[in-house]
Amino acid sequence: MGEREELVEELRWKKFPVLDDGFVCLVDVMGDDSSVVQAARVSYGAGTKKVSDDRTLIRYLLRHRHTTPFEMAEIKILVRVPMDCWRQWIRHRTANVNEYSTRYSVAIDSAQTTRPDEWRSQAASNRQGSGELLPTDMGEKLTASEQELHALTKSTYEARLEMGVAREQARKDLPLATYTEAYWKIDLHNLLHFLSLRMDVHAQQEIRDYSRTIGEQIVKPLFPVVWEAFEDYRMGAMFLTRLDRELIARLMQSAGKEGKTPPYSKADFLTVQDETWKELKRCRERDECFGKLQRLGIVAE
Amino acid sequence: MGEREELVEELRWKKFPVLDDGFVCLVDVMGDDSSVVQAARVSYGAGTKKVSDDRTLIRYLLRHRHTTPFEMAEIKILVRVPMDCWRQWIRHRTANVNEYSTRYSVAIDSAQTTRPDEWRSQAASNRQGSGELLPTDMGEKLTASEQELHALTKSTYEARLEMGVAREQARKDLPLATYTEAYWKIDLHNLLHFLSLRMDVHAQQEIRDYSRTIGEQIVKPLFPVVWEAFEDYRMGAMFLTRLDRELIARLMQSAGKEGKTPPYSKADFLTVQDETWKELKRCRERDECFGKLQRLGIVAE
Amino acid sequence: MGEREELVEELRWKKFPVLDDGFVCLVDVMGDDSSVVQAARVSYGAGTKKVSDDRTLIRYLLRHRHTTPFEMAEIKILVRVPMDCWRQWIRHRTANVNEYSTRYSVAIDSAQTTRPDEWRSQAASNRQGSGELLPTDMGEKLTASEQELHALTKSTYEARLEMGVAREQARKDLPLATYTEAYWKIDLHNLLHFLSLRMDVHAQQEIRDYSRTIGEQIVKPLFPVVWEAFEDYRMGAMFLTRLDRELIARLMQSAGKEGKTPPYSKADFLTVQDETWKELKRCRERDECFGKLQRLGIVAE
Amino acid sequence: MGEREELVEELRWKKFPVLDDGFVCLVDVMGDDSSVVQAARVSYGAGTKKVSDDRTLIRYLLRHRHTTPFEMAEIKILVRVPMDCWRQWIRHRTANVNEYSTRYSVAIDSAQTTRPDEWRSQAASNRQGSGELLPTDMGEKLTASEQELHALTKSTYEARLEMGVAREQARKDLPLATYTEAYWKIDLHNLLHFLSLRMDVHAQQEIRDYSRTIGEQIVKPLFPVVWEAFEDYRMGAMFLTRLDRELIARLMQSAGKEGKTPPYSKADFLTVQDETWKELKRCRERDECFGKLQRLGIVAE
Repeated sequence: MGEREELVEELRWKKFPVLDDGFVCLVDVMGDDSSVVQAARVSYGAGTKKVSDDRTLIRYLLRHRHTTPFEMAEIKILVRVPMDCWRQWIRHRTANVNEYSTRYSVAIDSAQTTRPDEWRSQAASNRQGSGELLPTDMGEKLTASEQELHALTKSTYEARLEMGVAREQARKDLPLATYTEAYWKIDLHNLLHFLSLRMDVHAQQEIRDYSRTIGEQIVKPLFPVVWEAFEDYRMGAMFLTRLDRELIARLMQSAGKEGKTPPYSKADFLTVQDETWKELKRCRERDECFGKLQRLGIVAE
Repeated sequence: MGEREELVEELRWKKFPVLDDGFVCLVDVMGDDSSVVQAARVSYGAGTKKVSDDRTLIRYLLRHRHTTPFEMAEIKILVRVPMDCWRQWIRHRTANVNEYSTRYSVAIDSAQTTRPDEWRSQAASNRQGSGELLPTDMGEKLTASEQELHALTKSTYEARLEMGVAREQARKDLPLATYTEAYWKIDLHNLLHFLSLRMDVHAQQEIRDYSRTIGEQIVKPLFPVVWEAFEDYRMGAMFLTRLDRELIARLMQSAGKEGKTPPYSKADFLTVQDETWKELKRCRERDECFGKLQRLGIVAE
Repeated sequence: MGEREELVEELRWKKFPVLDDGFVCLVDVMGDDSSVVQAARVSYGAGTKKVSDDRTLIRYLLRHRHTTPFEMAEIKILVRVPMDCWRQWIRHRTANVNEYSTRYSVAIDSAQTTRPDEWRSQAASNRQGSGELLPTDMGEKLTASEQELHALTKSTYEARLEMGVAREQARKDLPLATYTEAYWKIDLHNLLHFLSLRMDVHAQQEIRDYSRTIGEQIVKPLFPVVWEAFEDYRMGAMFLTRLDRELIARLMQSAGKEGKTPPYSKADFLTVQDETWKELKRCRERDECFGKLQRLGIVAE
Repeated sequence: MGEREELVEELRWKKFPVLDDGFVCLVDVMGDDSSVVQAARVSYGAGTKKVSDDRTLIRYLLRHRHTTPFEMAEIKILVRVPMDCWRQWIRHRTANVNEYSTRYSVAIDSAQTTRPDEWRSQAASNRQGSGELLPTDMGEKLTASEQELHALTKSTYEARLEMGVAREQARKDLPLATYTEAYWKIDLHNLLHFLSLRMDVHAQQEIRDYSRTIGEQIVKPLFPVVWEAFEDYRMGAMFLTRLDRELIARLMQSAGKEGKTPPYSKADFLTVQDETWKELKRCRERDECFGKLQRLGIVAE
């Protein structure tokens, strides 16, 4: 067995735990870093053979969004995940899916539970995220009522089955937190796209946990060069709009003229802001722009 | 306003009720029967102009699975549907979807309920379907416990929100029967494919109700010629395998030789059965074949 | 190396010739017959474990168009194919593709040529197919003029490159018969769909040659049980419309009443034909129906 | 007829010429700017109703790559395009397509021709693009030989048809520059993705001409707010990698310390370059980074 085969065999069926009772594991993989190179080189023909080594080529392809060579590798995993989280997951339409059927079989007897120190408050800053953790005494009450609810949903489901209700109907009031299992198969390009969205800070904590596990425990060892490029060009990237670009250029020019050194002030920033922002008291796009320039060390508050 | 525009305006936003609190309604439509013809004629060029009228062409295309012209019409609907049913729905990956977000807003305060006379027993004949209705006295108990469960899931959800739990986490134990809403946009070919699978007798009752409503209330008036062809060539079709075909041919030949008239007996059928079936006591494929020949009036039990 | 690995290694990179200068070869494969079973069993859960053996399950799935388990296997091939044929090929949108770039590199110096005994006449029976071969003396002239044309396209292309014309522009008048190469990766379900359409008698000869080679030389040895089911339920299947079905039923009933034995005559057939056909002198749907009943041995001319 | 209907009717079937004998025209459209808003608001539920006006919401969605609401509008166009260009076009797999069939009908009697002042040299800077125009005297010769070649391909094609060769075979040596026609239907999100790639400076001139025409003549008037956002956030955007970001931050910090004002020199840039670049004489990624900082006015050469 070659080195690659050993690595794959070591990973295959190894269950990486996620949440209280979920997991992800590798089932199969087609290709490695060199498959991306192989596919790219057919596009380029003999022309590129010696121009660049594999790592440089992979990085070039990912940086310039030449996506098709990354479609030439494929990964299949098995996941155990709460239905709530799975609902978000399969909004990505480019994967192949086989899910456990609760029409055909009795539902998996497990629902995601929340420890007293895991309850999150509604985010103040945005309407869809979570904020700070709630105090533990509140958490105790919440977890207790979660247990009570799970007990009732479970006993109701079981009572229905005992009374002979069809499985497809009996399941109707299972909580969204009920675990399901599925095979999920996707090409590397679409997997990276999924991960870039679902490892993002705006994604819900639960699916971020799954994504990070898939990325770091499975994709990274299997495709080390691609993963490095992904971190440099996707996860670590910043995107400047036309308005951002032009603002920076104006800021540099005026700073050059006026002999000012960085970092620049909020006032300097506002002086060169986009014309369309000037009249606005609150402007999310301006706030986002300022945030980017802060992260670049161009401005400081 | 032309006749078509009037028809569309009449349908648009008209809510066709499904289940106890769901609905489907047309939001927008691109094209009509003639769009299918228009697209087909570009493929065929001038060559086919006079060969056949529109109805004949549409029927020919559908009968011979020339699918691309049917992709040239598009329908957008708004649905209100239990999440349980929606989970099956969006397994079809060829549609565009925008769903109500229970991260962003408080969940819709409605879950599908079941009347005492609507509880279905587990099918005896297959593992995944429903059989007869359960007796009403049993149904009374089941409905009562459903109400109790819904009351608890509702109060638990509300208590979480009041205690400041993030909406994305508070929703975790909502029942699968909770209603959601979504815009769903799909081309006519893929819609017909969806309907052929979900109007089928093997589909779950709930999604069949939605499919039939979409088909009969929306697609049929908007695309009458396509719909007629769909009923003749998809819903009303029968599919014979190589083994079925060869069995019929053998049966006809031996009946011809022996001077037997139809319908033929089970014994006649078994005499000409496929070689590979002969040794088997139980054989699902043989049962299916016999069922087809019964429906064709070739055999009778 | 296990048996499977040996089989795969034996096939990998083995070029199966197609046409005068084309080929297909296996690059990589994920899964085998048992991957289909594995995926199906997660859907069915524990419920189906002992009900049926693998072959029976695979056949059941394919017969009943349960397509998702077949998406869990994946094949990657390398093809060398005339652009003309490739144009039809990539109309199938469900595959991953990396094609040789004639912007980046000089075009492959080969175009498909036709031997004097390979020129086909226009089909009389349908507008899009080929009929009989043309006489060889005509073929000699056609092949000679093909050579003359290829010589000019080749020298023109080379002259452009020598004069410094950009490759992306120089290629504009290459003949459609010019060979290209591509990696092509697709899941087993979509591959079977592709093959069922492109191995069909209505497909153009050239793409049928490629399809048959892929099917018989690559898919069949790699997925023997799936391939057998595919031949029985796809390639060898017959599809009866509602009108066909009802006609057969009427024919059986009247034959039973009148004591007639099969095969039945054209007149018998016409007596029970669909009401909507009666008024029509020419009716393609009726002709198709009669053809099916002939193949079933129910009628004879 | 409302304003919108008038606009659509004015555009519909209006042929915008592209190249010497090509065109694009609108066939149908579903939705407008407000359809994007409509779809987004169902996702957000009542929560967002008053938070932002439509333009602000559309811009927010596009800036943050919330792509699904843009899938809720759909455009159908008819194009006449050289097959060479069309080959690149249909590599985008997310559209619906019906193309003129040269199996069914005689090929369109037109191939793209090149004026003496339109011949482009091979790019020196990259392997796949075009550079300067070639001198007109050279162009005269190239155009003359193009005409000669077109004359022969045309007469050969016609001779084959006259001798009775099947259309599907006769076409095999048509030049790639032969025009074809197709209906092409795509949702707004995928259309914008197509345009961002094909209006790009790296795309071939011919497909850029088509893309710009579609974008500016059809999409812009039909979806003015979306188009403005597209120009600001896609076409005019710049993407900074992790390495770019960190370099800028280091540059700002050292400039702050050393009291240097922008723009900075190549030497300043090299001092803070990424560690992994230092050892490299040639480094494309470094060149790209320097180029970005130039465009931002941060460095100057």
